[in-house]
Amino acid sequence: MYRFNSDYLEGAHPNILDRLVKTNYEQTPGYGLDPICDSAKEKIRAACGAPNAKVYFLVGGTQTNYAVLDSILRRYEGVLAAETGHVAVHEAGAIEYSGHKVLTVPGKDGKVDAERARAYLEGFYADGSWQHMVRPGAVYISHPSEYGTLYSKEELAALRALCDEYGMRLFLDGARLGYALASEGSDLTLTDIASLCDVFYIGGTKVGALFGEAVVFTNPELGDAFFTEIKQHGALLAKGRMLGIQFDELFTDNLYVRIADHAVKIAMRIKRELTAKGYQFYNDSYTNQQFLILSKEKLDSLEGKVALDDWGPYGDGMRLVRITTSWATGEQAVDTLLSLL
Amino acid sequence: MYRFNSDYLEGAHPNILDRLVKTNYEQTPGYGLDPICDSAKEKIRAACGAPNAKVYFLVGGTQTNYAVLDSILRRYEGVLAAETGHVAVHEAGAIEYSGHKVLTVPGKDGKVDAERARAYLEGFYADGSWQHMVRPGAVYISHPSEYGTLYSKEELAALRALCDEYGMRLFLDGARLGYALASEGSDLTLTDIASLCDVFYIGGTKVGALFGEAVVFTNPELGDAFFTEIKQHGALLAKGRMLGIQFDELFTDNLYVRIADHAVKIAMRIKRELTAKGYQFYNDSYTNQQFLILSKEKLDSLEGKVALDDWGPYGDGMRLVRITTSWATGEQAVDTLLSLL
Amino acid sequence: MYRFNSDYLEGAHPNILDRLVKTNYEQTPGYGLDPICDSAKEKIRAACGAPNAKVYFLVGGTQTNYAVLDSILRRYEGVLAAETGHVAVHEAGAIEYSGHKVLTVPGKDGKVDAERARAYLEGFYADGSWQHMVRPGAVYISHPSEYGTLYSKEELAALRALCDEYGMRLFLDGARLGYALASEGSDLTLTDIASLCDVFYIGGTKVGALFGEAVVFTNPELGDAFFTEIKQHGALLAKGRMLGIQFDELFTDNLYVRIADHAVKIAMRIKRELTAKGYQFYNDSYTNQQFLILSKEKLDSLEGKVALDDWGPYGDGMRLVRITTSWATGEQAVDTLLSLL
Amino acid sequence: MYRFNSDYLEGAHPNILDRLVKTNYEQTPGYGLDPICDSAKEKIRAACGAPNAKVYFLVGGTQTNYAVLDSILRRYEGVLAAETGHVAVHEAGAIEYSGHKVLTVPGKDGKVDAERARAYLEGFYADGSWQHMVRPGAVYISHPSEYGTLYSKEELAALRALCDEYGMRLFLDGARLGYALASEGSDLTLTDIASLCDVFYIGGTKVGALFGEAVVFTNPELGDAFFTEIKQHGALLAKGRMLGIQFDELFTDNLYVRIADHAVKIAMRIKRELTAKGYQFYNDSYTNQQFLILSKEKLDSLEGKVALDDWGPYGDGMRLVRITTSWATGEQAVDTLLSLL
Repeated sequence: MYRFNSDYLEGAHPNILDRLVKTNYEQTPGYGLDPICDSAKEKIRAACGAPNAKVYFLVGGTQTNYAVLDSILRRYEGVLAAETGHVAVHEAGAIEYSGHKVLTVPGKDGKVDAERARAYLEGFYADGSWQHMVRPGAVYISHPSEYGTLYSKEELAALRALCDEYGMRLFLDGARLGYALASEGSDLTLTDIASLCDVFYIGGTKVGALFGEAVVFTNPELGDAFFTEIKQHGALLAKGRMLGIQFDELFTDNLYVRIADHAVKIAMRIKRELTAKGYQFYNDSYTNQQFLILSKEKLDSLEGKVALDDWGPYGDGMRLVRITTSWATGEQAVDTLLSLL
Repeated sequence: MYRFNSDYLEGAHPNILDRLVKTNYEQTPGYGLDPICDSAKEKIRAACGAPNAKVYFLVGGTQTNYAVLDSILRRYEGVLAAETGHVAVHEAGAIEYSGHKVLTVPGKDGKVDAERARAYLEGFYADGSWQHMVRPGAVYISHPSEYGTLYSKEELAALRALCDEYGMRLFLDGARLGYALASEGSDLTLTDIASLCDVFYIGGTKVGALFGEAVVFTNPELGDAFFTEIKQHGALLAKGRMLGIQFDELFTDNLYVRIADHAVKIAMRIKRELTAKGYQFYNDSYTNQQFLILSKEKLDSLEGKVALDDWGPYGDGMRLVRITTSWATGEQAVDTLLSLL
Repeated sequence: MYRFNSDYLEGAHPNILDRLVKTNYEQTPGYGLDPICDSAKEKIRAACGAPNAKVYFLVGGTQTNYAVLDSILRRYEGVLAAETGHVAVHEAGAIEYSGHKVLTVPGKDGKVDAERARAYLEGFYADGSWQHMVRPGAVYISHPSEYGTLYSKEELAALRALCDEYGMRLFLDGARLGYALASEGSDLTLTDIASLCDVFYIGGTKVGALFGEAVVFTNPELGDAFFTEIKQHGALLAKGRMLGIQFDELFTDNLYVRIADHAVKIAMRIKRELTAKGYQFYNDSYTNQQFLILSKEKLDSLEGKVALDDWGPYGDGMRLVRITTSWATGEQAVDTLLSLL
Repeated sequence: MYRFNSDYLEGAHPNILDRLVKTNYEQTPGYGLDPICDSAKEKIRAACGAPNAKVYFLVGGTQTNYAVLDSILRRYEGVLAAETGHVAVHEAGAIEYSGHKVLTVPGKDGKVDAERARAYLEGFYADGSWQHMVRPGAVYISHPSEYGTLYSKEELAALRALCDEYGMRLFLDGARLGYALASEGSDLTLTDIASLCDVFYIGGTKVGALFGEAVVFTNPELGDAFFTEIKQHGALLAKGRMLGIQFDELFTDNLYVRIADHAVKIAMRIKRELTAKGYQFYNDSYTNQQFLILSKEKLDSLEGKVALDDWGPYGDGMRLVRITTSWATGEQAVDTLLSLL
């Protein structure tokens, strides 16, 4: 059976495994204080056009979200996110566990819209009792969003301006960042992101690594003690070079974007061909996640042949279904999928 | 240069890398809900003689300690540990971050002694204002301890009895458990540990894995919602099968103990030969960690040739130095070390 | 100027002040371990028809909400509340600070509706990834609600049944409970509440005390260590008898309900007369809070004469305005208010 | 029976009760935003010689300690305290509940000694793995200490210098501050304290108020959002003027120090006369707490006549016993005590 449920179904890009094997008997200090991590960080700084950025490696996405937010929020601040934002829904309360409320605004295609966020903030500070409520200290966005949609450079700049106006920090969750960078649907480069956000992360887990997320602090006032904070949040990997190896490989010869590009191209083919067949999509995604509206019958008919991600009922007898491709998705898998639909 | 600083300097046992490579393109569901994890858990239950135990995989030690303690402690309880216990000293406050105080008793060779713990508890409940203080809800021990020492079956049984008497849970940190199981200095089997503790973990990171710790809940009242708690603590690995692969290999043909046995044998050789040469050891360790008392001059003379772990001054001109071996330590490294001392 | 902004504008009922003065030089142990607190607790148990209930006194409402919820929720659970619930909006993130997410359902007249809550729960557990999300462990309701509305016995019984079905606890915030008990609009007695909820509190601050809330645990499995938890949450009053004095007075000769009755009667007069004059109310409240829809001009015209609580714009040129009465509201104040409207 | 167990056995100074009664029917806004609180804050600023200080009122000591420390510590920092410090022992883990570790140094007469603290800090930063441990972000001291002892101006200045050197904040717990200010044993004025500490509090609960602690932030970089943080910690009093009334009275005509002076004078008489009778004291306290070493027999003989505070065994057959006086202690009580000893 071919699976299209998510982009973390397989292992890692072979370059990473090769490097793991090749370096296996090398002895290095732990906790990321090794030359391979140094090299990976340097490559990331270069790719971001941010020579002074502080780069840290963590293992997973929820972990990164809660450790970063807890680091950049003041004690009494919460984080503003789209109602559909990952931190608002799918993180088992990790943000609240760290003591911070997630404040939600209605999303727009899964994205935080600067105008809606501004309305929220104006309403918040117009309320005479705002000091009795949780103050928004940061904006959380994911790019691509949980719905595969993308921020334009203009949209991101608008959020930056809003954050400056209201004294908030801007944090971009790039769990799937590669797929955004590889997409024709976005005019945002890695350099843009580095210059517009205070902190963001480059996701490895969903873009070809075994695991790993690279956090990049470009705001020089943030992140100084993040090493200790990583440990405090139970997130410090003893054999830290495992993370260095993966990002060093991903940032060699642009591998990170190249493998994302493969996934996006395949997703575009699926979108194109299914559209041609008359299928309807939930939205117009240009990334590796495609949201199809499928009849329950059709979905059931696929059982045991291809696995898609069922997001629940969508009107009369229909289901919202996610199709996800990855760096590892083969042509044969796609052919099979398309032949069955 | 050969390094003896710790047991997490190298990658992983080759069987693990082979399996990673072999399974790389298989597609499995995430979060540990895959057949490889199932298989690994089954093997662990069998090795523990605990067919109903709940087994979960986490990534690292601090993470495991704080997630487990937070799960088994009630809101108002703290954990009792030796003053030298890892949770008391080296975890960047992760336990306190989860809201629990670490209550310390003077250690005995790095271990919690049942009699000293009992004295603490008697004093605690004799104090008229005990309800204004943090109630001890669990005992934390590490086996081997941070000083390489081992609990006897009798000592562990005494702690079990104490916990029963005072309504506490018993948690064993087995970050280096393999080295205890392989040691001639211990009469404690894995089955004993499973039957005497409420929950414990089998460390992978320091015993041949890239990373990973296997938590085993044998007390049926604990651990039911630990999956969600793992996520809440930012500790859920997306590609969970990475953990399954490692433990499945480590628990095939007793690999876990076999590779630990290699490390312990080498450590015993180092101990024997250095003792013969007149060196003094800090304590009588039968595991892969040996604590040598070395003159500062001697330690300095090793620089650039072999790396040991300097634990600080120990009386006049002397240093307390840790020598650690691992599954990967070669004979040549040991020969070099011994020739230099 | 007469103020109708809230029900905590004045000091305390004179009986309370008299008792404070009378007992001032008595020496009693601290922390509520005194005979006056014992007496007050006994009276509350009697009034609740719950001879085995555990009763504790705290100082304020937010404090009580977060200490109780933190006590009755498991580590990984959140609390279900109406979107307009006090814990969801106006507590500066105290609930999240204690590590728990507030899960919201659309309210119905400010109340949690059992059917909407059931829909939420069914949807929650139908989602394949519910273990990645915050599990609802309790339902939070306030009676009267933040909008002055009241639960019927049938509605509360429906929530009880829902909680039983889903393994949740039911917590009633009675910050203004007196006004509910005194209202003709409710068929719920204190005995009903004690038998249907797992835990609730009887508010003193807003019903005639200087401060103080009496928490009543009727579920025998809850609240055993709440004394320590109160201290842990910074909520233990050193001179605990201050709380005992107040509740002992309030539960002598039914004072608690009698003074609430005065406030409700006056509120009913305001409602009746303003309705007769053609004013429109936001909802049909039978308690001491009345929600008037007032033109901005009219509201402005009151400035410096009577103070109402402006809840913000309500359609074209109108404002939602809260009028609150208390045990201390005099006829002259009401006459003035009515003469100005 | 006369009680000498603590200084919070009685109600409040009559001036406070009078003012409560006199102002009872006044209507003021809640949460401390009223003219009485403004007046009290102004008087406190004047008394401290700190016209720009931010002053906030809280209800109790543990609450104040944990809210202030949580406000001034960064996420990854802990607080340095004497082993006998109140935050280290008797607060039910409230500090840890807020996520911060209490780091202890051996006390000197119950005080933090600058040299011992410096030794701790030097050792801490000399340890190669300090980034894996909890960083000391503040020093907590209580004045008088839990053992009735006092800091000299020189000692406090030494701690100030140490804090400056290590980038730490200095927080003084003044739960019993009045008794220090009134003592002949101290050369520290309120102005000195305000200029040497970053933040401190003036205790009301133990010095004549029903309850209440006045927090004074003199470091202009701290305390800006403390109003919201108070609420977040469940510590905001709805009828805030209760706190204003008490501190306004206490800071009128120097009442705060005058009533403390009474208590100290009486304690000095007890000390003098018991010393003359040959009794031995645990230390040389010049405040309202006297620590007597008493035979168990003697202590038992007092039962039912006078109540002292038994702090536990002190060598062979002896007990450490605390005698505490307060603003309300009468001559007759002291006469009785002295006649029995």
